[in-house]
Amino acid sequence: MRILSGIQPSGSGLLHLGNYFGFMRPAIELQEKGEAFYFIADLHALTTLHDATALKKNVREVAIDFLAAGLDPEKAAFFRQSDVPCVTELMWILSTVAPMGLLERAHAYKDKVAKGLSPSVGLFTYPILMAADILAYESDLVPVGRDQKQHVEMARDLALKMNQTYGPIFKLPEPSIREETATIPGIDGAKMSKSYGNTIELFLEEAALRKKVMSIKTDSTPLDQPKKTEGSVVLELYSHVASASDYEAMKNAFQAGGVGYGTFKKQLFEAIWDYFGPLRARRAVILQDPGYIDAVLKEGAQKATAVAEPFVKRIREAVGLGA
Amino acid sequence: MRILSGIQPSGSGLLHLGNYFGFMRPAIELQEKGEAFYFIADLHALTTLHDATALKKNVREVAIDFLAAGLDPEKAAFFRQSDVPCVTELMWILSTVAPMGLLERAHAYKDKVAKGLSPSVGLFTYPILMAADILAYESDLVPVGRDQKQHVEMARDLALKMNQTYGPIFKLPEPSIREETATIPGIDGAKMSKSYGNTIELFLEEAALRKKVMSIKTDSTPLDQPKKTEGSVVLELYSHVASASDYEAMKNAFQAGGVGYGTFKKQLFEAIWDYFGPLRARRAVILQDPGYIDAVLKEGAQKATAVAEPFVKRIREAVGLGA
Repeated sequence: MRILSGIQPSGSGLLHLGNYFGFMRPAIELQEKGEAFYFIADLHALTTLHDATALKKNVREVAIDFLAAGLDPEKAAFFRQSDVPCVTELMWILSTVAPMGLLERAHAYKDKVAKGLSPSVGLFTYPILMAADILAYESDLVPVGRDQKQHVEMARDLALKMNQTYGPIFKLPEPSIREETATIPGIDGAKMSKSYGNTIELFLEEAALRKKVMSIKTDSTPLDQPKKTEGSVVLELYSHVASASDYEAMKNAFQAGGVGYGTFKKQLFEAIWDYFGPLRARRAVILQDPGYIDAVLKEGAQKATAVAEPFVKRIREAVGLGA
Repeated sequence: MRILSGIQPSGSGLLHLGNYFGFMRPAIELQEKGEAFYFIADLHALTTLHDATALKKNVREVAIDFLAAGLDPEKAAFFRQSDVPCVTELMWILSTVAPMGLLERAHAYKDKVAKGLSPSVGLFTYPILMAADILAYESDLVPVGRDQKQHVEMARDLALKMNQTYGPIFKLPEPSIREETATIPGIDGAKMSKSYGNTIELFLEEAALRKKVMSIKTDSTPLDQPKKTEGSVVLELYSHVASASDYEAMKNAFQAGGVGYGTFKKQLFEAIWDYFGPLRARRAVILQDPGYIDAVLKEGAQKATAVAEPFVKRIREAVGLGA
């Protein structure tokens, strides 16, 4: 089974608990279940980021974070999207069978325009590049959030259209909707998201991380009173980083009363610090070798190219390009 | 000076006098004046032709005709557009700075939609691929018909936009409007065009060509009367294929009277037959060697790649793609 996932490098800033538990960990778990192809979507990032230095920095940072988080480059092909340029060739071919209506219906485009982003052609044709990525690797499974299901459906539509026009040359990909079992709350109780400014970053220094955790919003229940377990950000975050027995212990202490939020937050901080200890250690090793990221991405690009290039060559032949 | 021109391989059928004198001969003359890059636009053809066999056949035919007509592959780089796939990569990069409004204003798109062609995304984004072709070869001069001036202007707009965003990396191309000195009339007197069904093909067999020429519409002036020179298709076509003195002689005979249109048409046929004799001979030689076209296009692709790939690599670097 071949699994494909793209990672946006746009927007700098460190990895936070929300995207770690929501996207990164599930993706890393999947590397055990099939042939995973994970690319850093630098071509897509150009639709929102016109700053070469920032783009390169973001790509490096997301690569470092993913490897620190456990992505194993021996198991998954991990590469820059732009290092497999034949996807842009496939994109052009797909665009010659893609009806304008397909893109005009795209949610993401409508949303971006509604947000006042001045629409570029790239912002509009973005889903076709995404389809080219999905189809070029003949992916079986594309794990996506619910809001991105439409993109996989578009790739399916385009594959069908190509098959109707030129014969059965494309495999139809299946979206695999990531159930949002892990909606991680931020320090204010809303969903953790960079856009809400309520994130807790994994790789903060110890003092900064402690400060972030201590700033989690709690209610004003006095120390000696029982505390509400439901909806508690502290308890919810603790459930992800503590053992089952430690979690039960904290839950019981919430219900018993007699312990203040400050103590619970300290426990939460310790649990987060311990949970991500191995990742911090891996990250420190990675950062010591400046050539490591380049070597990993280069090898990933070779693996990806070995799949995508022969496929695009077949498509070229099928549509009548080349000698 | 670098000259770029794209040749549409869509629509089969043999070369006719209209496109020979209107486009092909001027293009071939330009090969003496600079470094000419002439590509057969097979990627563009996909927007209207979804038939691999027909596309390959059309590409071969237009290549044969161009070489027979005098295109010298030692002087000009002559190649298939799709053999230089990095133009699609550049197309994507350009599309991320191209405002939607730029394409929405494109005449060709509006015309095609008005003609009832169901618009594909490729039909819409076509001018960006054209801009990528123009810019990838850092062309100085792009000879175009008046109706295609907008495409060169769009390439200029995109180059400017890229330069504003990323610094001065693109050369601004200049359109060179081909003055329509040679509007060739068809057998019915209207502009010679495949869509009017009034063409005279260069490479017809002798009997078929004679028949075509004899079918040119003339007025009913009796044999002994003087004939109108102005607006005469026979005389106009003769001016392109006869020597100046032969042309003067026919013109005088028109004015003197006493010679019928049949005789003039026979003279016109003979002049056309002679004029294109060397081209027919070259064509016969080319057709004898099935590997010749492939070898020419392959060598052309190498020349073109040697220019476009390093350029696109520079652009990748400028926008922040790659290591």
